[in-house]
Amino acid sequence: MKTYRIAVIPGDGIGKEVVPAAIEVLNKAAALDGRFQFEWTTFPWGCDYYIETGKMMPDDGIELLKQYDQIFLGAVGMPELVPDHISLWGLLIKIRREMQQSINIRPAKLLQGLPSPLRQPHHFDFIVVRENSEGEYADIGGRLHSGQEEVAIQNAVFTRKGTERAIRYAFELAQSRRQHITSATKSNGITHSMPFWDEVFAQIGKEYPAIAQTSNHIDALAAFLVMKPESFDVIVASNLFGDILTDLGGAIMGSIGIAPAANLNIEGQYPSMFEPVHGSAPDIAGQGIANPIGQIWTGKMMIDFLGYPEVGTQILNAIETAFAQGIKTPDLGGTATLREVTDAVLHELT
Amino acid sequence: MKTYRIAVIPGDGIGKEVVPAAIEVLNKAAALDGRFQFEWTTFPWGCDYYIETGKMMPDDGIELLKQYDQIFLGAVGMPELVPDHISLWGLLIKIRREMQQSINIRPAKLLQGLPSPLRQPHHFDFIVVRENSEGEYADIGGRLHSGQEEVAIQNAVFTRKGTERAIRYAFELAQSRRQHITSATKSNGITHSMPFWDEVFAQIGKEYPAIAQTSNHIDALAAFLVMKPESFDVIVASNLFGDILTDLGGAIMGSIGIAPAANLNIEGQYPSMFEPVHGSAPDIAGQGIANPIGQIWTGKMMIDFLGYPEVGTQILNAIETAFAQGIKTPDLGGTATLREVTDAVLHELT
Ligand SMILES: CC(C)[C@H](C(=O)O)[C@@H](O)C(=O)O
Ligand SMILES: CC(C)[C@H](C(=O)O)[C@@H](O)C(=O)O
Repeated sequence: MKTYRIAVIPGDGIGKEVVPAAIEVLNKAAALDGRFQFEWTTFPWGCDYYIETGKMMPDDGIELLKQYDQIFLGAVGMPELVPDHISLWGLLIKIRREMQQSINIRPAKLLQGLPSPLRQPHHFDFIVVRENSEGEYADIGGRLHSGQEEVAIQNAVFTRKGTERAIRYAFELAQSRRQHITSATKSNGITHSMPFWDEVFAQIGKEYPAIAQTSNHIDALAAFLVMKPESFDVIVASNLFGDILTDLGGAIMGSIGIAPAANLNIEGQYPSMFEPVHGSAPDIAGQGIANPIGQIWTGKMMIDFLGYPEVGTQILNAIETAFAQGIKTPDLGGTATLREVTDAVLHELT
Repeated sequence: MKTYRIAVIPGDGIGKEVVPAAIEVLNKAAALDGRFQFEWTTFPWGCDYYIETGKMMPDDGIELLKQYDQIFLGAVGMPELVPDHISLWGLLIKIRREMQQSINIRPAKLLQGLPSPLRQPHHFDFIVVRENSEGEYADIGGRLHSGQEEVAIQNAVFTRKGTERAIRYAFELAQSRRQHITSATKSNGITHSMPFWDEVFAQIGKEYPAIAQTSNHIDALAAFLVMKPESFDVIVASNLFGDILTDLGGAIMGSIGIAPAANLNIEGQYPSMFEPVHGSAPDIAGQGIANPIGQIWTGKMMIDFLGYPEVGTQILNAIETAFAQGIKTPDLGGTATLREVTDAVLHELT
């Protein structure tokens, strides 16, 4: 039996509640399958740790994490206590960068038993491939002058390597799915980085003549996710555009609280990190009513990534069956607690 | 009787169809009111003009336009024939910049008689104030190296003056509406321009203690427009974020084809430009089925801006009454032609 050593960072807020719930589900799924098991090691890093130590994680945190097969993270951030630029750049974004998790993937799918806020959601099932290491999040820029003369500059940096990597990954994914890729651009308004993005998309597209290729401006694309989400298969987007489109993906599914995500090191030299789209939701933390589905579905993505997609499918089926019975947390209009939803998923997993 | 001299640029595609329709409605509204009339002067600029002359507008185009009270524009762009960076930057964005139309406003409102794609749209009625002269559309940047080493850099430039102007305009607008403002930010990921934006928002906010003030990251905000659009009053956003949010606003109203917009020179030294959110839609151009409502509603915004808000309200009421009778173009699921929709609005305007 194979054992996977997973570094667990519950993080802040509801992360501390949904991570243990998801671990229960993943353990049961592994036990039922019988081919593999998990060994979980928890690191208590995050805003509490920062308040105690002045750091979001210890100095050797990245080195420690490198010893694990994968990272399973809850949520990071307590903006009332610790400014975002410290909490996120000291933990979440730091791990993405230092572990070269340069691809972020986030599926959006109409789940059985879960009404979408869209009147006619048809049966959408798409996945957003987000460049996860550069672009608009380059953290380069600064300010000049003060008072009325002040100017702030932000540089977006798109490298050939980073752009090709994301776009090529998306084409490969489209090849294993419904053979359709959509590129998010804005080259009509953003006149240097986005024409470059378009060129790389067109060039790599030539290697995949069998795949239907579309390019949409981000404004139109955001609207299309509301008007006709069923027309997308794989969407490839820059760091910022991917961020926006995936929250929209969560919204049309019914709640950000169910949207899963993976930060992948596709070269395999470092662990990948599995972390849901939602944040730490300090307003509802500690009440036992957080939605665990985003974290559970994120765990399913980790199992898929480890090479057991049939097991992943069983988890998603269990989620859908639980929803079909009306067992839902308040963010989805239900009255169930985190515990009840977790138990329902565990129960359906057989 | 006051006469307003309006420069009309129908532009490309469906712009040539919807602009004359809107002019009929505006003329009737003015005649019914009796206090003012329009004198329309049409300029045949756009992609056809470019194909003939090599320019989107003549060299003295901006000087010519300055002689008019306002500009009424249809749509610009024929990407199959003329690259966007030529058509848009040679006409639409050029006018916005050279006329210092630094504020773009775009309302989104659940119209009577028009089902939203949202299952429970409640009664949203918000307006996005978009910075329209700088930010992510600064057109500054470039490339270094070639082949595998190539890097593209895009600079977003936020000035104190431009940022303050947009945010202050939005606060003033909120004061005349429901006293609530939401700022679109992304300072957790975009670490120079967006913290600057947040600072300016907080600082100007101190001058308006009676106005409820919220700041949301653009990813969450996009999701909120789907989940709870009724919770917004005035949203203030950078050039790019405003662009994305207003297409989403069109989508939740039922079609981009009805969303109106105004590019305002709030200092009043140059004309403002009234131009709907939708583009030239080459795929349906010339068939008489384009939706004229976006252009008509844009005309209503021009009438409001000229100082006749009661007349503007009558136009919007006529639109809603026409919709309530089921008279809709195909993009809204109806079967009416552009002519039929225009006639219905004209008929309801009494
Ligand atoms: C055509 C394009 C450059 C433009 C913009 O992004 O400003 C359009 O999308 C708009 O919103 O008016
Ligand atoms: C917290 C924030 C920096 C982050 C991002 O924008 O990457 C989040 O929104 C996400 O999508 O994981």
